[in-house]
Amino acid sequence: MRPAVTFLTDYGPHSEHAGALHAVIVARCPGVERVDLAHDVPPGDVRWGAILLARLAPLLPDAVHLAVVDPGVGTSRRGAAVRLAAGGALVGPDNGLLGAAADRLGATGAVCLDPARLGAAGAPATFHGRDLFAPAAARLVLGEPVDALGDRIPVADLLRPDLPEPEVAPGGIITETAGLDRFGNVALLARPEHLDLARIARGDRVAVICGGRELPAVAGRTFGDVPVGTAVLHADSHGFLAVAVNLGDAAAALGVTRSGARIAITRVRGPAGRLPGGSGAGS
Amino acid sequence: MRPAVTFLTDYGPHSEHAGALHAVIVARCPGVERVDLAHDVPPGDVRWGAILLARLAPLLPDAVHLAVVDPGVGTSRRGAAVRLAAGGALVGPDNGLLGAAADRLGATGAVCLDPARLGAAGAPATFHGRDLFAPAAARLVLGEPVDALGDRIPVADLLRPDLPEPEVAPGGIITETAGLDRFGNVALLARPEHLDLARIARGDRVAVICGGRELPAVAGRTFGDVPVGTAVLHADSHGFLAVAVNLGDAAAALGVTRSGARIAITRVRGPAGRLPGGSGAGS
Amino acid sequence: MRPAVTFLTDYGPHSEHAGALHAVIVARCPGVERVDLAHDVPPGDVRWGAILLARLAPLLPDAVHLAVVDPGVGTSRRGAAVRLAAGGALVGPDNGLLGAAADRLGATGAVCLDPARLGAAGAPATFHGRDLFAPAAARLVLGEPVDALGDRIPVADLLRPDLPEPEVAPGGIITETAGLDRFGNVALLARPEHLDLARIARGDRVAVICGGRELPAVAGRTFGDVPVGTAVLHADSHGFLAVAVNLGDAAAALGVTRSGARIAITRVRGPAGRLPGGSGAGS
Repeated sequence: MRPAVTFLTDYGPHSEHAGALHAVIVARCPGVERVDLAHDVPPGDVRWGAILLARLAPLLPDAVHLAVVDPGVGTSRRGAAVRLAAGGALVGPDNGLLGAAADRLGATGAVCLDPARLGAAGAPATFHGRDLFAPAAARLVLGEPVDALGDRIPVADLLRPDLPEPEVAPGGIITETAGLDRFGNVALLARPEHLDLARIARGDRVAVICGGRELPAVAGRTFGDVPVGTAVLHADSHGFLAVAVNLGDAAAALGVTRSGARIAITRVRGPAGRLPGGSGAGS
Repeated sequence: MRPAVTFLTDYGPHSEHAGALHAVIVARCPGVERVDLAHDVPPGDVRWGAILLARLAPLLPDAVHLAVVDPGVGTSRRGAAVRLAAGGALVGPDNGLLGAAADRLGATGAVCLDPARLGAAGAPATFHGRDLFAPAAARLVLGEPVDALGDRIPVADLLRPDLPEPEVAPGGIITETAGLDRFGNVALLARPEHLDLARIARGDRVAVICGGRELPAVAGRTFGDVPVGTAVLHADSHGFLAVAVNLGDAAAALGVTRSGARIAITRVRGPAGRLPGGSGAGS
Repeated sequence: MRPAVTFLTDYGPHSEHAGALHAVIVARCPGVERVDLAHDVPPGDVRWGAILLARLAPLLPDAVHLAVVDPGVGTSRRGAAVRLAAGGALVGPDNGLLGAAADRLGATGAVCLDPARLGAAGAPATFHGRDLFAPAAARLVLGEPVDALGDRIPVADLLRPDLPEPEVAPGGIITETAGLDRFGNVALLARPEHLDLARIARGDRVAVICGGRELPAVAGRTFGDVPVGTAVLHADSHGFLAVAVNLGDAAAALGVTRSGARIAITRVRGPAGRLPGGSGAGS
């Protein structure tokens, strides 16, 4: 195991809660590398947290990944630690947050965190990140096995996030938002193959519809391929479709604030869009 | 002293000002651990900064804590360094920010920072964090004694934040906001004992009033104990009362943006609230 | 070269994109110091990013500075690495972002990053930070020379940000916003010498005008020199003029959101302002 702990939470950037996690790790295992993967997950957006963890943890598959997006803190939902094939581990609430990363990285075992074994039996009900999960991560990075932190549970019993496949018909895709980033880029659950199935080609004009809002876009390759203020439907750097506005904010235009919003994409009749620089294949 | 510097400011998460503090520390003492406790304190909210420092610094009582919430930068307010019983130190403006942590951790001495001794005699008037406080923190973590940084001042003379005790009557509490977090959870100056004194029991319905706004809430234990969108008045993980809305934003509902807003809590007549899962003692 | 990598981006504080950069560096060069200079540059605001890099990188002139504000990612704009006189380097898109820092720190050579040599030939079009620039920074901090990363280009060919000199007349200055910070302090391209040229003295009342908005201000020294809610025009800690409101938000008052807004400053006739504490020279 790499002597490194990563952090992924909805605690807010440089919030006191994120600070407390770091302080607990430094107090218990000085000198380990600490890597903030993300703290700006929308509050309680477990699914987007799960997707981000599955995208980012593979960059450090042998590290201990401490993940906390935990709207059910203090209720009956359990905590878990997961042993990864590459030597790392996942720690956090078993509410779906860990499931996608466990599958992507290969889980070789899991336990239900035992507060008593972690010195957290009488801990407050609202900050398991500080009192349960960070101490568990510290124990793992110091070399204790996952099995020391609680009773074994089948890896198959870990909750997985619900990631429904898109519905595709010629000229249209119905999918959901995976999440959004600081630029207002909206990540979708659909992938480039769904564009092919829907017979939408690069350069085609499409309408992206969310709730009552409709954003005209061009199927393209990157932000700078379309004029400033224009939306582009493209394959993002994780292999999923995403909607972005060049130097604008697609999420604001669509009213998207978190994972799970229903998105319809339909090809628009008429002349195909023309991408600048000749990079649009369909134009 | 632990070779670690923590940072707590209102500079904004990952702002250039927070970056400058880090760069000064790395330039002067490469290899020391750096821990961001919080940078999202509302601008100029000295009291919330003081409360957070007193809550977080005890996690690393032997570290150097660099704290800057400093609306009076460049005026006559002085800077201070405080020696802590456990081997650590506090550094920052003497405007109340350091007082609560000094008391909580036990201060064994204090000095008024001397810009001349810190090479900051001709420094600009608006960035003492970079030019005075961070260099002072660097000197301390490199092993210099607090006394080397300026003239001694009595610990009793350090400014303390004003933290008034709540007013309590049967059925009601009048208190102030301590601060708020990223989830819109509103921390109060009142503690669970004040609920007892006011004869408000778990499961009771209360009204939380701030300005002209009133938020119905249930006295409970954690967010997930109440339905989504419902407010809960609970003991937070620091032993104070707090108001939260399950998957919502209590601060927005109450119009709270910083420390010091007056909050009234009154028990509401009628049937007691019923908490799901039987966890509500008063139901 | 110092074994340290700094980060300056518009990815957003503690965003998943910033996290990915850190993870790439940790995976490739464990143990190097990582310093976040800023991640809150307004999206796509290359000029403010360039100014901040030129202000902050000199604190660590021997480090590798990884800077990404890159609205043209995936288009024909090239990436660059720049060798600095003090032993450090700059890495990022050649869109103006690196130019001011290169000039300030002294560039002794530059290359156009070659994706093929960096294992990024088939990388996605939208995340060169993760796939091209961070790997380049990792190679440099591990000891490879700048010249190993691509073909040489003349330092003079690196794009520079456009930083026009203010227009000054007696009683007035026309300049542009350099950028803004978390406090709503608005940094300008004008410097204190322009105040002298415009015959505006400390204590003078001025009007700061942006678009149709006008903010009355006093030429002063620091925030606390003026009453709460009052604007002060002062020399900031980097030697430029800035507009701030004591415990308020000058950027909001002026409608400023990024670099490049046109700002007019005019001296207002009538009695000079009187600064509290006698610190106003002109009063």
